[in-house]
Amino acid sequence: MPKSTDTTPSGTVAAETAATSRADAEQTLRVGVIGCGYWGPNIIRNFASIENCELRTICDADEDRLDAIQRRYPAVSVETDAAALMDGSLDAVAICTPIRFHYPMAKAALEAGMHVFVEKPMTDSSATARELVELAADKKRALMVDHTFVYSGPVRKIRSIIDDGQLGDLLYFDSVRINLGLFQQDANVVWDLAPHDVSIMDYLLQREPKGVSAIGSVHFGDQEDMAYMTVRFDGPLLAHFHVNWLAPVKIRKTVIGGSQQMIVYDDLEPTDRVKVYDKGVSVNVDDSERRRVLIDYRTGDMFAPKIDKTEPLFAACSHFADCALNGNTPLTDGEAGLRVVRILEAAQESIAKSGAEVTL
Amino acid sequence: MPKSTDTTPSGTVAAETAATSRADAEQTLRVGVIGCGYWGPNIIRNFASIENCELRTICDADEDRLDAIQRRYPAVSVETDAAALMDGSLDAVAICTPIRFHYPMAKAALEAGMHVFVEKPMTDSSATARELVELAADKKRALMVDHTFVYSGPVRKIRSIIDDGQLGDLLYFDSVRINLGLFQQDANVVWDLAPHDVSIMDYLLQREPKGVSAIGSVHFGDQEDMAYMTVRFDGPLLAHFHVNWLAPVKIRKTVIGGSQQMIVYDDLEPTDRVKVYDKGVSVNVDDSERRRVLIDYRTGDMFAPKIDKTEPLFAACSHFADCALNGNTPLTDGEAGLRVVRILEAAQESIAKSGAEVTL
Amino acid sequence: MPKSTDTTPSGTVAAETAATSRADAEQTLRVGVIGCGYWGPNIIRNFASIENCELRTICDADEDRLDAIQRRYPAVSVETDAAALMDGSLDAVAICTPIRFHYPMAKAALEAGMHVFVEKPMTDSSATARELVELAADKKRALMVDHTFVYSGPVRKIRSIIDDGQLGDLLYFDSVRINLGLFQQDANVVWDLAPHDVSIMDYLLQREPKGVSAIGSVHFGDQEDMAYMTVRFDGPLLAHFHVNWLAPVKIRKTVIGGSQQMIVYDDLEPTDRVKVYDKGVSVNVDDSERRRVLIDYRTGDMFAPKIDKTEPLFAACSHFADCALNGNTPLTDGEAGLRVVRILEAAQESIAKSGAEVTL
Amino acid sequence: MPKSTDTTPSGTVAAETAATSRADAEQTLRVGVIGCGYWGPNIIRNFASIENCELRTICDADEDRLDAIQRRYPAVSVETDAAALMDGSLDAVAICTPIRFHYPMAKAALEAGMHVFVEKPMTDSSATARELVELAADKKRALMVDHTFVYSGPVRKIRSIIDDGQLGDLLYFDSVRINLGLFQQDANVVWDLAPHDVSIMDYLLQREPKGVSAIGSVHFGDQEDMAYMTVRFDGPLLAHFHVNWLAPVKIRKTVIGGSQQMIVYDDLEPTDRVKVYDKGVSVNVDDSERRRVLIDYRTGDMFAPKIDKTEPLFAACSHFADCALNGNTPLTDGEAGLRVVRILEAAQESIAKSGAEVTL
Repeated sequence: MPKSTDTTPSGTVAAETAATSRADAEQTLRVGVIGCGYWGPNIIRNFASIENCELRTICDADEDRLDAIQRRYPAVSVETDAAALMDGSLDAVAICTPIRFHYPMAKAALEAGMHVFVEKPMTDSSATARELVELAADKKRALMVDHTFVYSGPVRKIRSIIDDGQLGDLLYFDSVRINLGLFQQDANVVWDLAPHDVSIMDYLLQREPKGVSAIGSVHFGDQEDMAYMTVRFDGPLLAHFHVNWLAPVKIRKTVIGGSQQMIVYDDLEPTDRVKVYDKGVSVNVDDSERRRVLIDYRTGDMFAPKIDKTEPLFAACSHFADCALNGNTPLTDGEAGLRVVRILEAAQESIAKSGAEVTL
Repeated sequence: MPKSTDTTPSGTVAAETAATSRADAEQTLRVGVIGCGYWGPNIIRNFASIENCELRTICDADEDRLDAIQRRYPAVSVETDAAALMDGSLDAVAICTPIRFHYPMAKAALEAGMHVFVEKPMTDSSATARELVELAADKKRALMVDHTFVYSGPVRKIRSIIDDGQLGDLLYFDSVRINLGLFQQDANVVWDLAPHDVSIMDYLLQREPKGVSAIGSVHFGDQEDMAYMTVRFDGPLLAHFHVNWLAPVKIRKTVIGGSQQMIVYDDLEPTDRVKVYDKGVSVNVDDSERRRVLIDYRTGDMFAPKIDKTEPLFAACSHFADCALNGNTPLTDGEAGLRVVRILEAAQESIAKSGAEVTL
Repeated sequence: MPKSTDTTPSGTVAAETAATSRADAEQTLRVGVIGCGYWGPNIIRNFASIENCELRTICDADEDRLDAIQRRYPAVSVETDAAALMDGSLDAVAICTPIRFHYPMAKAALEAGMHVFVEKPMTDSSATARELVELAADKKRALMVDHTFVYSGPVRKIRSIIDDGQLGDLLYFDSVRINLGLFQQDANVVWDLAPHDVSIMDYLLQREPKGVSAIGSVHFGDQEDMAYMTVRFDGPLLAHFHVNWLAPVKIRKTVIGGSQQMIVYDDLEPTDRVKVYDKGVSVNVDDSERRRVLIDYRTGDMFAPKIDKTEPLFAACSHFADCALNGNTPLTDGEAGLRVVRILEAAQESIAKSGAEVTL
Repeated sequence: MPKSTDTTPSGTVAAETAATSRADAEQTLRVGVIGCGYWGPNIIRNFASIENCELRTICDADEDRLDAIQRRYPAVSVETDAAALMDGSLDAVAICTPIRFHYPMAKAALEAGMHVFVEKPMTDSSATARELVELAADKKRALMVDHTFVYSGPVRKIRSIIDDGQLGDLLYFDSVRINLGLFQQDANVVWDLAPHDVSIMDYLLQREPKGVSAIGSVHFGDQEDMAYMTVRFDGPLLAHFHVNWLAPVKIRKTVIGGSQQMIVYDDLEPTDRVKVYDKGVSVNVDDSERRRVLIDYRTGDMFAPKIDKTEPLFAACSHFADCALNGNTPLTDGEAGLRVVRILEAAQESIAKSGAEVTL
């Protein structure tokens, strides 16, 4: 991942992309999209609007969907068989299919020499994820996972606050993502919702997880519809995730505790999504006979920084196009995708073991 | 627990007490209070204002505290040694000391033939809790644990909604109790905050827990300052608790999922603390070859019932006085206290085992 | 206004339209749209998606805008001169221009025998509004003003609650619509924002206003950027409006007081936009010497009914098409438009007189 | 008003008082309190806890109230006739009676040579208010009105932000104070609720009002139970007040617009009561033929400063004691009280004239 991108202030991915692209004005990335279901149309809309991309081909098994798409994008050709996109006429492919197709399609595309943009989670196992990472390296192609939130204004702003050291020591990362959700056919709530939060955590904490515990419950059908996951790191830092398809209210809230400052990120707030609290805890150990621990609290101002409002998916797609055209490593590359998949996989294993920790 | 109390609508504990007390107008409960620290003054204020109680003696090791109390309650005598309250001049004693003194003081008081009102958690181990339960039964004295929330308007209203069957099948109980909290000297966050939520759960769900998993973290000093606990029951019902002394914002929120309706209870809402959502999920299994699970969602009105605003601690103290005078079993008797302590103890054990489930 | 439309439950305008349209399946309304600025594209999108409408021609002075529109709607013809739409090839026209063009364009269209759908406010004076009402009656054409909120789920639900008599006597209507707003070139904040709230009030209260007082202030440029308006009715009922382009936060809140129940309608709430409070006031006059007025308060449950989520503008456009094809009177016809314009005009006059009441 | 008090940072009134008092440790203010109704007990509690005050005598016509007070404050003597407090045994008197007694009692107390602390509003007419101001000057006694909010952390913080010039030009002051309120026997909603907001405005804006318009309505009994008031200043600055006893929800919100920054003060927020928005508007007049006004918006960070949490009434009572003992002029002296009464009186007059402006 290029340092320059990583350390820039929030919201500048798209801006930088634009700047870089100007230098490469002649180059255009010929893009195909596989899958037009729930999320695909957003991918299509964004690639269609990026200057250095040419949206060429769209593939879906459902012809009605293809018709609807073609009415809106008359210049685009459509296919019902993904194999047709591997014929060398495209530079890159975006894969927005059900999860089980991510691995075979990404593999085929990489082998056909294409850059690959794949929906989250990257694959349904760490073994296949690792294979894609290696294949992309081997083929020297960009492999990027659509961890969309990493490209959002709030998350990039929080990253810059953490990188500035404002929070002090990181104490915990607590995330709640619940609502009355649609049951997926091929993914439980862990594989459906948690990739968002685990990828946000991976990007923000920049730490290597050591173990995962999780507990889930199946109320309807045969898949977990709610789960609690804990990720352990070296030292006292904990990350915890509550994902739930059965909640009467929608909550999207992350609290990040630091010894100096703490952050509350509420993605549903109309304004002031990121609040930085000048509150903290410090500790002094008194050497007197009772070895009493003296803990001090500090409360101060609250600060809600202005947040960049660029559509995160536009920033993500633009970043992918830029990396593909310029040979850069995406911010959420295959390695990031693999790190997320490993945690999901361990969580699934821990659920089967009633919450016993799975070491990573 | 007397049926008549249990099934009355929310907030009527105190009212009933008043009604009953009229019949026993001659009887008065002579009450002593041990411990005038953080919570003790509230206990004192309430027992001082209950008609069928006579607040006689207050005990604390700190003479300055005793002076301050006596200035406000000139008719009350004060003691620095709890043994002085066991001399037969009192009918009942309220124990508001640090947790480690709950067991020895409650034991001494029961053995001296007194009724006992003890702060939560009842004791610091299930063995001592069980011993107190047996001793109270043996001595035929009321033993009540101050699970204050069980006597609050919101919790009693939720119980009546659950007892009416409105929620359908119970799916989960999710509780968050976090804020920038005071570190306790003799209790970690599990023993300090979780008794509230575990006692609410015990009262509302009325189910026997089967196992407990918990993960905690120690950031300052030598005790857990945050923890996540999960309680498993037979079937898919889960209860989960997040308790945290290191949060920048105060949250007191419980979500109870049912197949027919769901409840959000936010104890910090100025009005509308209990919201009942007419939302639910139902499932049909399609027998066709793919055994596709058909899940239906239902969304409807929201309803926020009027909540009784009697001070919960007043209702609790009145209920205790009534039970002591009339030989009734308190709603939150020693058995309830023991059930809560068993869960806390199992959570502590699971924390030591990195979240592995402890069977109850 | 046809009784059948008026008394149907919330959200059924579009549904009824659909039902009626089936009977007239052969009939199609040929629609043109004048003005593609801020709101026009929404009008275009909705008329393009209504089954019994054929979007034929779009007119705007700005050729770039027309190009952009035609790319999305290739079958539609474009014009830069509105006169070209008066040639008899259209059945109806939607006017989405700056306010000063509403009257001349609506007049020309009615005279050309077309049905007219015009943005709010209908015109910039009651004289021209009255002229359009008479012309539409004369020509037997549908004249409908786009009071969009009248077609929204929340407002229709509130109307049905009022019509059921649940609120008791209406006491007041208080509306706040403020944010950091765009300054309009040809309208001050009264003519820009207040039409929303005045049309909502007109629809909900169904009372004849007697007088208007208003105070405004000009901070930038030469038009009022904030104003407070009061509408008086016979008896103690008051309506008050705060409209403001200079507020740091966005507020869209209406409180409707009744003697039996009261409503809070917050258009920015993600869920539970309409809350019905079972609170009220009743009064008894004590005949004792001091003639003391005894006032009782009642507080009870709160109820948030499920709200229909049909896009209000889709419901409005569908209703217009239906009225035009079937000869019905629109819910927000020229008379409704005139009632709103009279209030705005009186408010403007009162502002010039430092808040002195203008009798209607 | 002494400069030193006025320019200190928020919340330091009590602190300064403490500092000053140390120097005058020998001096003690002998205080009497007249009226033990709704607010009186708070006044009593605070004067009882201030170091340099001795609470001597309490007066109320209701002997039961006096008994209850004396049980809590056994050292205090009680009287049923206020004349008994004018015998020279007291240095100061606090008047917490119904409004109509403020003037005669304050007059009698000043004439008896006492310092006077009087509840808001100071009197029920500007004539009597002016008389008290002159009498206090003549007798060289402190006359202070209990404009409690002026001594609160949020209001003092806002004042310091305004004094720092952060807001730029003041554009407007908008205040809403509504709830389901108790009807007063001798005051309508203007005289009951608006003194809070008018005194806050007087303290914050520091401008001379030029005119007042108001509209009110009487729904129950014979007094206004809701009202809207507007205060005009030189230039475009407007202040507006909504006071209402008939609202289903409690709102206490003030928005202060400035050209550089804007403030939202919500007194019901558990934390972050004062939010400073870095948003503003600037204007450029384009000299081109259309004299188009170019208006720029600016949106930036939001900042919620830490707010001092000292009980405002304690700060007010301490400040009074200090001023009385040291011969200083209170921050909310008779002049401030008179300024507020003049606005209330003008509002009442404007209500009678259907909102026509009353010039001050």
